[in-house]
Amino acid sequence: MKRREFLKAGTVAAGAAAVTAASSLPAPALAQSRIEMVIVSSWPRDFPGLGTGAQRFAQRVADMSDGRIQVEYFAGGERVGPFDAFDEVASGNAQAYHSADYYWKGKHPGWAYFTSVPFGLTYTEINAWIRFMGGQELWDELASDFGLKCVMCGSTGVQMGGWFNKEINSADDLKGLNMRIPGLGGDVMAKLGASPVSLPGSQIYESLVSGTIDATEWVGPWNDYAMKFYEAAKYYYYPGFHEPGSMLALGMNASWWGGLSASDKLIVEAAASMENDVLMSEYNAKNGTFLRKLIDEQGVELRDFNDDVYDAFGDAAEDVFEETRAHSDLTNRIHESFLAARTDVGGWANLADAAYVSQRNRVLGV
Amino acid sequence: MKRREFLKAGTVAAGAAAVTAASSLPAPALAQSRIEMVIVSSWPRDFPGLGTGAQRFAQRVADMSDGRIQVEYFAGGERVGPFDAFDEVASGNAQAYHSADYYWKGKHPGWAYFTSVPFGLTYTEINAWIRFMGGQELWDELASDFGLKCVMCGSTGVQMGGWFNKEINSADDLKGLNMRIPGLGGDVMAKLGASPVSLPGSQIYESLVSGTIDATEWVGPWNDYAMKFYEAAKYYYYPGFHEPGSMLALGMNASWWGGLSASDKLIVEAAASMENDVLMSEYNAKNGTFLRKLIDEQGVELRDFNDDVYDAFGDAAEDVFEETRAHSDLTNRIHESFLAARTDVGGWANLADAAYVSQRNRVLGV
Repeated sequence: MKRREFLKAGTVAAGAAAVTAASSLPAPALAQSRIEMVIVSSWPRDFPGLGTGAQRFAQRVADMSDGRIQVEYFAGGERVGPFDAFDEVASGNAQAYHSADYYWKGKHPGWAYFTSVPFGLTYTEINAWIRFMGGQELWDELASDFGLKCVMCGSTGVQMGGWFNKEINSADDLKGLNMRIPGLGGDVMAKLGASPVSLPGSQIYESLVSGTIDATEWVGPWNDYAMKFYEAAKYYYYPGFHEPGSMLALGMNASWWGGLSASDKLIVEAAASMENDVLMSEYNAKNGTFLRKLIDEQGVELRDFNDDVYDAFGDAAEDVFEETRAHSDLTNRIHESFLAARTDVGGWANLADAAYVSQRNRVLGV
Repeated sequence: MKRREFLKAGTVAAGAAAVTAASSLPAPALAQSRIEMVIVSSWPRDFPGLGTGAQRFAQRVADMSDGRIQVEYFAGGERVGPFDAFDEVASGNAQAYHSADYYWKGKHPGWAYFTSVPFGLTYTEINAWIRFMGGQELWDELASDFGLKCVMCGSTGVQMGGWFNKEINSADDLKGLNMRIPGLGGDVMAKLGASPVSLPGSQIYESLVSGTIDATEWVGPWNDYAMKFYEAAKYYYYPGFHEPGSMLALGMNASWWGGLSASDKLIVEAAASMENDVLMSEYNAKNGTFLRKLIDEQGVELRDFNDDVYDAFGDAAEDVFEETRAHSDLTNRIHESFLAARTDVGGWANLADAAYVSQRNRVLGV
C-alpha cells in the first residue's frame, strides 16, 4: 500500500454520494445526546479487506449505539482525497479516519512503527506491544502532538514477499531490479541495489506485463489473486520481510474523543478492537483459501527467500533503522520500545506459535 | 486446566461476597430498560489471566452500557461450583458463564473443539475458523441443543509442553511416566504408555516435589512461574502439542440472548471480542517476560520435543480423533470443518507467521 496507490481509485469514486451508516436506523431514543462521527478513509469503497473492514467498523459503531452515535463513512476521494484524511481529522473537519499510520511518516517517522516496519512485529506481537508493553502510550504521545488519538482497527497480517519473474537465489539477484515496493521496505531494497518504484495499484499489473517493472509486492493471496499478478510473474516469494503485520488505525480528533462519555469511548474502542480481530481473521481465512487457488488453479510457483537473501535484508534493515531513529528523541524511544517487545515476545514466539506450527505442519504434511 | 483443578480454590473463595460490577456506576438514565446479567465463572477470583480477564470483560459490559446492563460477576465457588457454571446458565438461573467449553466434553465430545484439541489450531487460526470458516455455525448448533449461545472471550495461546525431571529423547521415555495432563492430551499420552493424572492446581507442586508425579503441564511461562515448578523439575519442554490455542468462552442462556436488542447483542459481542484479543495480548506480553525470568533467574533448561517424539504424538492423536469423531454426526461434522480450517489456514501459516518469525529470529539471533 502506498499513498499514490489509491489516488486514481479515489478520483473515480469521488462523485459517488456518501452513504451514511446511520441512515437506515430507527430514530434514536435520546435525540439530545446524538453524537456526530464523520469517518474519512484512505480506501476505495468496498475495497476487499481494507475498505470492507472500515465500513463494517463504521456500521458497528452506529448499530452498537442504537444510532445515538451518527456515523457517516466516506471512502477515499468521496469527501477528501485518500491521504488528506489525516489533516481532515487533525483540523476537526471530520471526527475520525480509518487508514494506515505509516502514510504519515513524512510528518514524523515515528508513525511508521504503528503500521509495520521491516523485520517488525506480527499481528499477535504488535497487539502485545500496543496493549501491554508501552506501545499505546508512545502512540498516544506521538498522536497528541498532532491533535489525534489512535487505536488499533484491523490488520492485513504477514504480507507476502512479492512476485518476481526470475528466481532470487542471492542478494546479487536483487541488483538492478525495478520493484514496486513502498516505504521502509523500499529503502531496504534500495540499499541492496534494487530500484524501488512507487505505482498506484491500478497500474501495477500493466507495468509488470510490459516489463516496466520486474517485480512487485502487494498484500497476500486474497488481495493478490484479484490483481492477476500470476499472469505476469511466475514466482511468488515468502516470507515478506517488509510488512509482517500491517496494523490499520482509527485516528480520532483528540478534542472530539476527549468530549465523549466514558461509555461512548468504550463503545468506539470495543468496536475498533473487534474489527482488529475480525479483519485479521478474514485475511487469514481468505489467504488460506486463495493460496490454494493460486497454486492449484493458476500454477503459481512458491519460493522462499533463502537464508543468504534474508541475511542481506536484515543487514540493510539495520542501516535503515539507524537512519530512522536518529530523527528525534521520540522516534528513538519508540524504536527502543519496539526492540524490547520484539526480543521478549519474539523470543516467546520461538517456543510457541512458530515452533508449534512448524512441528504440527511437518507431522501432518500440511 | 481440568475440572477438578479449581474445586479446592473455589471452595476457599466460596465465603467471599460477590462484588457486583455495576455497583460503582452512576444510576442509569433508562431505568426501565435495565437488564440483569449474572455471570458465573470457572476461575478463582483474581486468578491471573483466566480470572482477571473474565472480571475485566464483566466490568466492560457494565461500563459500555453505562450501567444499563447490570452485571454481577461470581468467581468459581462464589455462587455455584466452578464446573456447575454450565448447568446454572443452561437452566436460566444465571445469564452467562465464562469458562473453557472443553470442560463440558462429558456432555458432548464436540465441546472439546471449541477450546483446544491436540494438534489443533493456534489463536489466529481458531479465530479464522470460528469467524469465517463455519466454526461459529457449528458451535451454535451444538450450543443450541443445550439452550446456550457461545462466543469467543479470551485465549491462553499456545501452551508449553510441560515440566519433566528427565530428558525426553524418544517416545519410549514417556512410557510409565506419571504426568499431570488433562483431556484429549492426556488420552494421547496414555496411548504412548504414560499414565495421565488429574490433580487440582493446588496439589501439583507438592506432587512433583514428592515424586508422586514425574511431570506436569500447566499453561505457559506467566502462569507456570507463579507455580514454582522450576524448583521440582529441571526441563521445560516445548512446543506443547495438546493445547495450541485454548479459547475461552462466554456461554449465554439462549432465551436471554434472544431477548436482547440488536444493539445490546452487539455490546456483549464486542466486549467479548475485545477480551478475546486483550487476554491473548496479555498472555503473549507476560509469557515473553516470564520466559526470560525463568531462564535468567531460575536456570530453567529449555528443551524442544524432537521430531521422533512429535511423530509419536501425531500418530497417537490420530487414534484419539478417530474415537472422538465416531460419537455422532455432529461431532464428525465439527471434526471435518476443523480439519479443513487446519489445512487451509495452517497451510497459509507455513508461508506467513511461522516462516516469517523463524527467519526474522534466526537473522536477529532472538
